[in-house]
Amino acid sequence: MTLTTPGSHLDALRNTAPLVHCITNYVAMNISANVLLAAGASPAMVHATEEAGEFAAFAHALSINIGTISPAWVEGILAAVNGAKAAGKPWVLDPVAHFATGFRRETVAKLMALKPTVIRGNASEIIALAGGASAAQGVDARDSVSAAEAAARMLSRNADCVVAVTGETDFVTDGVRAVWISGGSALMPQVTALGCSLSSLVAGYVGLEGADPFDATVAACAHYAVAGEAAAREAAGPGSFQPLFLDALSLIDAATLDEQARILPA
Amino acid sequence: MTLTTPGSHLDALRNTAPLVHCITNYVAMNISANVLLAAGASPAMVHATEEAGEFAAFAHALSINIGTISPAWVEGILAAVNGAKAAGKPWVLDPVAHFATGFRRETVAKLMALKPTVIRGNASEIIALAGGASAAQGVDARDSVSAAEAAARMLSRNADCVVAVTGETDFVTDGVRAVWISGGSALMPQVTALGCSLSSLVAGYVGLEGADPFDATVAACAHYAVAGEAAAREAAGPGSFQPLFLDALSLIDAATLDEQARILPA
Amino acid sequence: MTLTTPGSHLDALRNTAPLVHCITNYVAMNISANVLLAAGASPAMVHATEEAGEFAAFAHALSINIGTISPAWVEGILAAVNGAKAAGKPWVLDPVAHFATGFRRETVAKLMALKPTVIRGNASEIIALAGGASAAQGVDARDSVSAAEAAARMLSRNADCVVAVTGETDFVTDGVRAVWISGGSALMPQVTALGCSLSSLVAGYVGLEGADPFDATVAACAHYAVAGEAAAREAAGPGSFQPLFLDALSLIDAATLDEQARILPA
Repeated sequence: MTLTTPGSHLDALRNTAPLVHCITNYVAMNISANVLLAAGASPAMVHATEEAGEFAAFAHALSINIGTISPAWVEGILAAVNGAKAAGKPWVLDPVAHFATGFRRETVAKLMALKPTVIRGNASEIIALAGGASAAQGVDARDSVSAAEAAARMLSRNADCVVAVTGETDFVTDGVRAVWISGGSALMPQVTALGCSLSSLVAGYVGLEGADPFDATVAACAHYAVAGEAAAREAAGPGSFQPLFLDALSLIDAATLDEQARILPA
Repeated sequence: MTLTTPGSHLDALRNTAPLVHCITNYVAMNISANVLLAAGASPAMVHATEEAGEFAAFAHALSINIGTISPAWVEGILAAVNGAKAAGKPWVLDPVAHFATGFRRETVAKLMALKPTVIRGNASEIIALAGGASAAQGVDARDSVSAAEAAARMLSRNADCVVAVTGETDFVTDGVRAVWISGGSALMPQVTALGCSLSSLVAGYVGLEGADPFDATVAACAHYAVAGEAAAREAAGPGSFQPLFLDALSLIDAATLDEQARILPA
Repeated sequence: MTLTTPGSHLDALRNTAPLVHCITNYVAMNISANVLLAAGASPAMVHATEEAGEFAAFAHALSINIGTISPAWVEGILAAVNGAKAAGKPWVLDPVAHFATGFRRETVAKLMALKPTVIRGNASEIIALAGGASAAQGVDARDSVSAAEAAARMLSRNADCVVAVTGETDFVTDGVRAVWISGGSALMPQVTALGCSLSSLVAGYVGLEGADPFDATVAACAHYAVAGEAAAREAAGPGSFQPLFLDALSLIDAATLDEQARILPA
């Protein structure tokens, strides 16, 4: 299967149902699993140090999110990342509110040293990770995605990874290539953990056999953006948006994705 | 902004999106975050001892729920409460099934000594917390709210805090003032963790700049009651109720809230 | 109340609302509680070693799921199972992906030694638990239920318990009696943790006063299958399926359950 357009990635996702090992926050656990299942991947949540490295080695990709970390979970996360790396599997980092406390700053520094394949965050997180001053206080973005473009490019080059800044539009770069992806809905930040769930979906796409991490990240963001737009057409508010969004992730086919994805070179 | 009616509180919530630090049970995590986002606040779940106190200091309010505690989480909870108190931030206690085991009784005693700003519980929890004999066995209320009125008044005076007993109608008192709030729906106890989520919403309202804890608690309960009634008009059962309820929390505006809230002096 | 048909079990469930003590994975917590509430039972999640045994003793049944275990949780699980057994209460084991890592294999061996009343798993899990070679890699079944029939019969006789293999059709046996239950929907495996939630619902039914574990397990599976079919008639995808399924669990009455359940001797 040649992976070119987002649609070809989506077909591959559905045909192979990659096993995505997720260590994510408690808020995001259920919705992340539902996002992966609706899209076509196979999620598994495994966090204990006793087994996380062993499990990561046979999963197709690993998704790490620091939203509700504690020291024991950080240990499990490090075991998983090391297991994935030793087995040559890609991993995605979602650095939730990494600037908020000393414990988070320390943890994210350890994770950056392990060289994620992709970093996905909101604008405030990416700006702060690149060393800039962001406007954020908690876990919600207070900066626009466009304000994070330069930071994302710099972070991508310095950390030698794909960086995805997601929000009202998404910006994805590998330090050389860069695109803007439009779509989605203003209701999406009103549903908790949809950003976290996208990180896990990115892991699913990046875990496809033969996937290029940049193209796969773009495909995941495009799938999300097109599904978000479809769901928003029928949603009355953030509550009804969530089931409609899962339906849309599941119902969109490859041709529709390629037709409706709005991806512009940056 | 002057905070008078529930509607004026709702406007303030949406204009300032207070950061609500929640340490709640695993069942309630996702729905609590969605309730806060739909209402207009900004939730963050942070429980590790290593960072909970630091985080609580810059959040606008703290919400503590003992539903699925363990010793490590109790440590984090105490760090968070002490951090909130040192920074002069209000905090809400949800004493889930605190009478059920020795470990819970001990934990709630430690928390009561730290003087919550507001206690929100079901009738069985409030009766037991005031020292009475409740009919409860597990986490669901087995007593009526009206049977808890005297206990709530006594608890409020003894603990010098606002007490909210929620159920088929809600009773809120600060030991001097007291009101009944009607509304909601019989479907609400059939959806898990809606009571827990209300505790976090109370924290959001109480965390508003210049808020009086009694008025803010009443506003949160009124917002919930009106949204619950609206959702019940369209829901076929507890499953469809939940997305409709989140929509209603988000769609209700200040004028509608003030018009539809049914608050009677007790 | 005589418990004969699935409908008579359902009436008993709604009339007595058995307290179901669940120690389940983080993904399944919320949806399991909602399934139990919609069906008519009263869920409680309590996992700490400090209280799990004490709580299990006064609950009507215990549901154990190893989906996201860590050493501390295994301790709490063992305390709960020992508490339930000492008090003569039934308990259900859901051995999620027990073959995937050494830590899981060890844990499930400890649990099997404590003699569960019922084991509910997918085909891959039951085949592996009976000592066979399954096709599974992660948490999703890769074997058909019919391929697991012999394994289920053997496991049931060897472990002296009821075994339920659920999937496209369900197979339930106590080593002597055996039935197939049809119904449900192809959307069910696309919604995360519906299998886990069924294990907790089985615990609710098995916890009914005077229940026979085999008949009660069949009743729980039939309730699920009929509700799944009803929900699928209106669902557009896995997102809309979930609220419709909870509605259906709640709305189905005893007569409808008995009329629509498709249970065939095996």
